[in-house]
Amino acid sequence: MKEIGVGVIGTAFMGKAHALAYAVASAAFGDGLKPRREVLCDISAQRGKAKQKEMGFARFTTHYMDVINDPAVGLISICAPNVVHKEIAVAALTAGKHVWCEKPMATSVAEAEEMLTAARASNCQTMLGYNYTQNPLVHAARQLIEEGAIGRVIGFHGIYDVDNEADPDRPHSWRMNRQASGCGVNADIMCHLVSMAHFMTGSEVTRLVGDYDTVHKQRSDPKHPGQTLPVDNDDVCTALVHFASGIRGTLRVSRVAWGRKCGLRWEIHGSQGMICHDQERLNEIKLYTRSEDPRQQGFRTILSGPCHQPYDAFLPNAGHTLGFIEVKACELNQLLIAITKGEPAWPSFEDGIKIERVMDAIDRSVLSGQWLDV
Amino acid sequence: MKEIGVGVIGTAFMGKAHALAYAVASAAFGDGLKPRREVLCDISAQRGKAKQKEMGFARFTTHYMDVINDPAVGLISICAPNVVHKEIAVAALTAGKHVWCEKPMATSVAEAEEMLTAARASNCQTMLGYNYTQNPLVHAARQLIEEGAIGRVIGFHGIYDVDNEADPDRPHSWRMNRQASGCGVNADIMCHLVSMAHFMTGSEVTRLVGDYDTVHKQRSDPKHPGQTLPVDNDDVCTALVHFASGIRGTLRVSRVAWGRKCGLRWEIHGSQGMICHDQERLNEIKLYTRSEDPRQQGFRTILSGPCHQPYDAFLPNAGHTLGFIEVKACELNQLLIAITKGEPAWPSFEDGIKIERVMDAIDRSVLSGQWLDV
Amino acid sequence: MKEIGVGVIGTAFMGKAHALAYAVASAAFGDGLKPRREVLCDISAQRGKAKQKEMGFARFTTHYMDVINDPAVGLISICAPNVVHKEIAVAALTAGKHVWCEKPMATSVAEAEEMLTAARASNCQTMLGYNYTQNPLVHAARQLIEEGAIGRVIGFHGIYDVDNEADPDRPHSWRMNRQASGCGVNADIMCHLVSMAHFMTGSEVTRLVGDYDTVHKQRSDPKHPGQTLPVDNDDVCTALVHFASGIRGTLRVSRVAWGRKCGLRWEIHGSQGMICHDQERLNEIKLYTRSEDPRQQGFRTILSGPCHQPYDAFLPNAGHTLGFIEVKACELNQLLIAITKGEPAWPSFEDGIKIERVMDAIDRSVLSGQWLDV
Amino acid sequence: MKEIGVGVIGTAFMGKAHALAYAVASAAFGDGLKPRREVLCDISAQRGKAKQKEMGFARFTTHYMDVINDPAVGLISICAPNVVHKEIAVAALTAGKHVWCEKPMATSVAEAEEMLTAARASNCQTMLGYNYTQNPLVHAARQLIEEGAIGRVIGFHGIYDVDNEADPDRPHSWRMNRQASGCGVNADIMCHLVSMAHFMTGSEVTRLVGDYDTVHKQRSDPKHPGQTLPVDNDDVCTALVHFASGIRGTLRVSRVAWGRKCGLRWEIHGSQGMICHDQERLNEIKLYTRSEDPRQQGFRTILSGPCHQPYDAFLPNAGHTLGFIEVKACELNQLLIAITKGEPAWPSFEDGIKIERVMDAIDRSVLSGQWLDV
Repeated sequence: MKEIGVGVIGTAFMGKAHALAYAVASAAFGDGLKPRREVLCDISAQRGKAKQKEMGFARFTTHYMDVINDPAVGLISICAPNVVHKEIAVAALTAGKHVWCEKPMATSVAEAEEMLTAARASNCQTMLGYNYTQNPLVHAARQLIEEGAIGRVIGFHGIYDVDNEADPDRPHSWRMNRQASGCGVNADIMCHLVSMAHFMTGSEVTRLVGDYDTVHKQRSDPKHPGQTLPVDNDDVCTALVHFASGIRGTLRVSRVAWGRKCGLRWEIHGSQGMICHDQERLNEIKLYTRSEDPRQQGFRTILSGPCHQPYDAFLPNAGHTLGFIEVKACELNQLLIAITKGEPAWPSFEDGIKIERVMDAIDRSVLSGQWLDV
Repeated sequence: MKEIGVGVIGTAFMGKAHALAYAVASAAFGDGLKPRREVLCDISAQRGKAKQKEMGFARFTTHYMDVINDPAVGLISICAPNVVHKEIAVAALTAGKHVWCEKPMATSVAEAEEMLTAARASNCQTMLGYNYTQNPLVHAARQLIEEGAIGRVIGFHGIYDVDNEADPDRPHSWRMNRQASGCGVNADIMCHLVSMAHFMTGSEVTRLVGDYDTVHKQRSDPKHPGQTLPVDNDDVCTALVHFASGIRGTLRVSRVAWGRKCGLRWEIHGSQGMICHDQERLNEIKLYTRSEDPRQQGFRTILSGPCHQPYDAFLPNAGHTLGFIEVKACELNQLLIAITKGEPAWPSFEDGIKIERVMDAIDRSVLSGQWLDV
Repeated sequence: MKEIGVGVIGTAFMGKAHALAYAVASAAFGDGLKPRREVLCDISAQRGKAKQKEMGFARFTTHYMDVINDPAVGLISICAPNVVHKEIAVAALTAGKHVWCEKPMATSVAEAEEMLTAARASNCQTMLGYNYTQNPLVHAARQLIEEGAIGRVIGFHGIYDVDNEADPDRPHSWRMNRQASGCGVNADIMCHLVSMAHFMTGSEVTRLVGDYDTVHKQRSDPKHPGQTLPVDNDDVCTALVHFASGIRGTLRVSRVAWGRKCGLRWEIHGSQGMICHDQERLNEIKLYTRSEDPRQQGFRTILSGPCHQPYDAFLPNAGHTLGFIEVKACELNQLLIAITKGEPAWPSFEDGIKIERVMDAIDRSVLSGQWLDV
Repeated sequence: MKEIGVGVIGTAFMGKAHALAYAVASAAFGDGLKPRREVLCDISAQRGKAKQKEMGFARFTTHYMDVINDPAVGLISICAPNVVHKEIAVAALTAGKHVWCEKPMATSVAEAEEMLTAARASNCQTMLGYNYTQNPLVHAARQLIEEGAIGRVIGFHGIYDVDNEADPDRPHSWRMNRQASGCGVNADIMCHLVSMAHFMTGSEVTRLVGDYDTVHKQRSDPKHPGQTLPVDNDDVCTALVHFASGIRGTLRVSRVAWGRKCGLRWEIHGSQGMICHDQERLNEIKLYTRSEDPRQQGFRTILSGPCHQPYDAFLPNAGHTLGFIEVKACELNQLLIAITKGEPAWPSFEDGIKIERVMDAIDRSVLSGQWLDV
């Protein structure tokens, strides 16, 4: 059993998710490349020290370059803020380290291009954390589509609604300022939806028209009670899209959609059927295929099971439920296989930049009020 | 108990639905204006004669002007093909007869304007058959919204998918030819979605950008085996829309969406909650409102019941299910009340023309590739 | 088109439902026997007179024998209280009138036997109002089962929960007194569940053990504020059952189940599949059949449509929803066909008495604490 | 951060689940007692050696006494076949080791009593692997009930259906022989349902009547093609039950229920509401509570989130989904807290024997055909 030393940069939601994925990968997936937790990086020494022990790392540091320069480390998880993805990724790839980078790839297409250039110049594998595409059931859905289960793909329609910022009384934050954070949902969650659109259709968005809505235009200033600050980026982002394959579709995301906690829902329309998914029920897909007997026609609710590999890495029986962490481990497993084989997994930086360009085109379309090519 | 003589023009799906609504209205709604079935009109004398007896009408005719000129008739149902809506409606209104006209209102905005002019010149009530808006539970949802149950309305998102033409092997028909029938789904079912958008938001679409997709571009020629004919109108129609009230939203309809039988689904996003509906489960709405206790938060599935009036006209207990015909009778009841009171119900021709203009603007937007005002 | 004069005894929930069914039957079902509304009976002359006009009957009376003796009447709807079912049914059948009797059949097996004797001595058709079994989709489910869609039937499990009496603060009523009304739910709603069990399995319950629970043992006395009266019949009734065919199952009903409005849910387990229904979604069945490809296995949600006849009597398109009244009209249609053909429909009094015997056996089983033969 | 050495006996489904739980516990739960993977035991040296590396244990052995005698081991996972639970548990407890034992506790009440005696004689904590009760959302449901969210508990109704043996063509196995394996589903999965009934009601079953059904009475003999062997234990087991608290309910389990993969569904009926769960959607509960406004009443679908602790140990956002392994880790966490505090968690051997006695009473009730006290 071969091992690879890993370092994780960042210890918040995603840092912890990566750590948990590293913790279970070998026990779940068996005799592949085994991650060995070497270094954890947090800008706070106190937190880093505590987390290092809890998360099972051999060492900790407060400087990300220590992780990159650590000779025991071969794979680096970038779970730090988006604004530093580029500098860390470029440094890691330049140092010959494989990179597992959280989404979105970067804060601009220009940055993403630098990252891609560094990846191409290296012999390293890269993977972006579009975890929803790594669900074994979603992979199975894609495979069924490729086998023709719903005929020719004729449309993709996707929504990603959450209610993180739905409360009008939530105070203003840097996320709501275009200068500080760029786009709102068009950066933060549209990328998940575009990744799903690209993955499921096997094609990519090439032309679009978009729209923004800032629903809550003023929010209370957390520093000055009684005063408000303007929100100047998008609470809602929508687009009509065309794909390279010729199909068309719609994209819609919102951070102010009460009741949706992880409301990533999509439908693939086909010439002979339809397949749908709702991330809040990640262990189910809905499949409609034509039946000989119209009396028996209907959407099937398919529960994830061991036939939807690699569900079987965790559970031998269907209907027993994978969770976010198991799916994150499946994502890691794709990367470990890529490293072993020396062949990229999806989505590498090559795939990621196509996602970034769609969001960039949406932004330009909204500002210009026009249909645009990506 | 006052009565009103009614005539129905057309005996297909909608003609039958109107006849059934007239048959149950008085027994269901009690002491209001009571419809008395006088004349049924069908261009086939044979069919008209048979249907007259089955449907409980006193007479039948093959000429619609016989219905209009019948002195016993005060209310006329127009269930004939769309291309004749205008001439029948104008004649009926000119003759001083109230009009219940099926959707869409007409085949062009110009026609619809003629109809509206005739309505304004009369003392008659008009109603358009946007039956999905007449569901007691939908009315209750609107009332809850007006009472502030979900705060300020911040967005409307609607879909209407059906699979009537999903089968690529279905032969070509006049519906698929732009010259013969005008738009495809942008005429046939978009009107339902726009009616719902207007009804639920209490506002109207004023600006939009639209897109069409013709998914199955050739269909077999039913008259010449082995040959095909081009489909040159829209299988799918999508739009990003702005409303007069300032909110924004999306509209999407398709006739090639396998598995959707009456897939009219909409969401109203509010500043304090959300409310959703799926026409295939017309007796349920989903309501999310903020809860004091986050542990108990979730979408509520509300079953229709007697508190959602006039459900109680049919059933004294909740959860016992209204069907299409009961809802159609609720629609009729709105019109009968309007006639009694001499005040319009929603949607009259005044409301209907606003719906037509949205579809017209979508068509122009697609052809010009631009955002347009309605 | 042949006609039959009908009389309805009772004008409450079920009287109205019968009147509505009579109103739509001919328009919906076309050229069969056409009901002609002759006499309506209500013990209140004032209410009877008002309802007669609303419901479209030619006459009204306050004496049920006037209905029976009316020479224009050939079919009588018994929608009066359970305690008078027997005397009305026997008189009607003796007078040679067909009978459509609401459920439960009677208040004792002895009464039901008298009714059956009268039916056998007549040339008349009888039908009991077990409306849930008359849903076109339920008929289709039964037909699919008979065709082997789920293999051999191996079990029936049914629940009927409602919340009519769930509120502990609801005052005492005659329904809660065993002497006044006999059993509680074992009379009122267990009959629906047993009718479904018999219909769907094509067999009948022959052996069982039952249990009661009186959850709210005291309720406020509506006549004496501050005082309570004991509830001495069953709020909940459960049973383990064996069928003549050899299969086994469970039955459970409750009137104190918060949130269930018409919660009649059943599952038919088969050797090759399963089929399930929930009356609150009467237009859907769930069907599971084995699939060649385990990746695609799942319960199908089948929407009612015109292929589930006679749904097509009301609507030409699937997914457009039948309601309680349409289903009641389907029930009537079965009876009209039976009268026309001179052959019984299901459930006649022959079928009904088997249902009564199951409830009687449950009652005896609870009181004796033993497994019993029906 | 204190540590405890752990040994796992068995490497199949449950052995792997325990190993994964040990792998993630510290990273997820932070600064509690940290498990240190010491010894893995498998009767196959080859498999044990491979799994030891994959699963991150320091050593492996083929003899369970090596685990028990290992001075570095303080906590032992018993994931071996049911027939050896007793001997391993007694030996481990006698050696002063804490025990985490998979379900069912033993193969007889007598064995379970020996285990309990050993536990009482020790200073060790015990926990049984009734994982479905350890779901954070289920814990939250129980807490809500204790706080009065649904008023007084008035009933428990539970089902556990799976389709493991639904295929009549599956060959005979030892599981289908009463002599070899004891009861069928009354041993294997009824225990899960009873554990849930006890946990959710805070009470225990004290009186019952049960029934078995052997649906597929002959199965093919895997050793003698063309021949069959009899199935002489229960494919289906049902019971009517009374609880110590006075409430009543029903239990039903089946291994031949097509389409159910992990179909553990339960309802708690309360005097002011209802709460329901379906294990196939483990991240959702349905809650109905009375509303002031009947128009807004309905079952709420609550998604698991960080407010349902310790969901927050894995994920900071609601709706992101826990899986089987996360829940198993929550179970482990309960045990680690119990060890730290020196106070039992639920379900210890004290709780487990009450579960065993219910299954034993069901078996005796079926054989005697009588209601019995547990």
